[in-house]
Amino acid sequence: MSPELKCLLAEIGEQPAVVARLLDDQLAAVGEIARTIRARDPSAIVLVARGSSDNAAVYGRYLFEVCNRRLTSLAAPSGLTLYGRGPRLEQTAVIGVSQSGQGEDVVAYLRAARDQGAVTVAIVNDETSPLAATAEWVLACLTGAELSIPATKTVTAQMTLLALLSAALEDPERAAEGLHGLPDALSLAQELRPAAAELARFLAPTTIGSVIGRGFAFAPALEIALKLKETSYTRAEPFSAADFLHGPVTLVEPNYSALLVDVGGRSSQSAQEIAAAVRQRGGQPAMLRAGEVSRDSDVPNLALAVPVAEPIAPIVALVLGQLFAVELALARGLDPARPRGLRKVTSTR
Amino acid sequence: MSPELKCLLAEIGEQPAVVARLLDDQLAAVGEIARTIRARDPSAIVLVARGSSDNAAVYGRYLFEVCNRRLTSLAAPSGLTLYGRGPRLEQTAVIGVSQSGQGEDVVAYLRAARDQGAVTVAIVNDETSPLAATAEWVLACLTGAELSIPATKTVTAQMTLLALLSAALEDPERAAEGLHGLPDALSLAQELRPAAAELARFLAPTTIGSVIGRGFAFAPALEIALKLKETSYTRAEPFSAADFLHGPVTLVEPNYSALLVDVGGRSSQSAQEIAAAVRQRGGQPAMLRAGEVSRDSDVPNLALAVPVAEPIAPIVALVLGQLFAVELALARGLDPARPRGLRKVTSTR
Repeated sequence: MSPELKCLLAEIGEQPAVVARLLDDQLAAVGEIARTIRARDPSAIVLVARGSSDNAAVYGRYLFEVCNRRLTSLAAPSGLTLYGRGPRLEQTAVIGVSQSGQGEDVVAYLRAARDQGAVTVAIVNDETSPLAATAEWVLACLTGAELSIPATKTVTAQMTLLALLSAALEDPERAAEGLHGLPDALSLAQELRPAAAELARFLAPTTIGSVIGRGFAFAPALEIALKLKETSYTRAEPFSAADFLHGPVTLVEPNYSALLVDVGGRSSQSAQEIAAAVRQRGGQPAMLRAGEVSRDSDVPNLALAVPVAEPIAPIVALVLGQLFAVELALARGLDPARPRGLRKVTSTR
Repeated sequence: MSPELKCLLAEIGEQPAVVARLLDDQLAAVGEIARTIRARDPSAIVLVARGSSDNAAVYGRYLFEVCNRRLTSLAAPSGLTLYGRGPRLEQTAVIGVSQSGQGEDVVAYLRAARDQGAVTVAIVNDETSPLAATAEWVLACLTGAELSIPATKTVTAQMTLLALLSAALEDPERAAEGLHGLPDALSLAQELRPAAAELARFLAPTTIGSVIGRGFAFAPALEIALKLKETSYTRAEPFSAADFLHGPVTLVEPNYSALLVDVGGRSSQSAQEIAAAVRQRGGQPAMLRAGEVSRDSDVPNLALAVPVAEPIAPIVALVLGQLFAVELALARGLDPARPRGLRKVTSTR
């Protein structure tokens, strides 16, 4: 095992503790920001991020729109940074999400928002970063340094902070309630590495062409697809279930497999429907299931049934996806922690 | 040539006339809607769509944010339709984009928006559709029936209407000015089919893994990637240039090719940078270039230099991409107009 892989597995293993730490230490900060946002009552929340952090932002978007009924936009920072003209943001709350806090376009967007008078929040791991310095409010991920190139514990921390913030926007006094089961669930997830390896060996000879989720399952599908690329060069494209049926389903053929994400609740039925569509076309469906999910399935799957509701279960599903990605790389004879040609911080203007 | 392919080529060929018709016949309707939006001054524009129409919506988002500085969100309709809880929309303008006007989730989102008092607009081809009946305002694509499964002329019409609306939001009296050169540019594009065939034959033996664009080039990259899937099962994933560098660039290896979209202006430099990154990793870059672009390039490319500014050039680039997709399918011995297992209208709730 390479030192890099040892490090990646250690960072995956730290996630239960990372979440527990946030539940202990960041409730006050989250509550203060939620009270500020409630008081200012912005006309929209804007999330700005790149890469894995952008997938965490997609999760935040579903939380804020479904649980808080607040219109939430995922920013296209290139409007501002390429053309020097971004949207007017004075009545918004803008949340920048970045592991390093270095990304120039995210920093520029947050600076423009703050200059215009928006509520600005940075969700960062590095509290001394330019992004943290730019935002009025900072929520720190408190993960310690993340050394692996594939981001894991920082994404989980970002998602946890977004879930806490969403809950605090409803009731600042009870923000952590829905998340109390999360550290235990993430610990149980770690024990599924052998099952992840089994599913990985089953799918390794196939072309894993897509990772699909609907509703709350969409954000983990995005991030799991990125992990598959980074750890084993698997060209799995993420799709929302609805968009998949609008064309890309035509890709399915024998030896094509699709990984469906099920986080319980409404996302479960969609995963079943897509599985049937994939099978009908001669492809191989498989599932990652976490939360209040059924264990029974005639589809090969990696499942963790835990009492975590659908809006929080994406964090558990993501950890299953991380383990699956590691094991898929190993099944294909690759080192998941040494992606060719990638560095930890990517600079885009 | 199959009757379906004849039909697809005819529909691609109709696009100059479709755009000319919209410039003649829809200026009054566009101007009236623009005046309504200006008068109501919504806090955000929300675009709601699926499939190809959603790619047109991404184009609209760049227009409204960069050219009009109006915060624009691409809706996740599943929040509303799966969970029964979507964002509050009373201060917004919601634009539904759909060829058929049948998609249940788009209709449901627009209905919720109208019930809340939002300005609602339907951009549809079928003016008798449920979406048209639901919206307060209707902008018709006027393309006539689109029979081919891969959407072409309706997407171009949607993009043209969004460009007209964006221009009218700035100055209702001069909305068409920037688009006067568009019908001629689209006619010239048709003549590039042999050049598209040449580029297609060059890339056909490679793994075309991505279609990449930055800024205004991103929306055509999304739609071209979808066309490649629908016409030749090519698993090309669309990326913004910035996100590509945040991980997926690791996919590049010998025989991997990336199609870069360049619509002039700021998008050109980004295309050059990505080409260099792909080449450095041993992959094959290629470009689709339209608008005020350079013809000189050491990268294999399909280029149309026409006096169409960067915000409008994506429509020209898309037509080049359609021709490339058709020719790639033919180069691979496939019928681009008969994708297996797809129907024209996809229903998602």
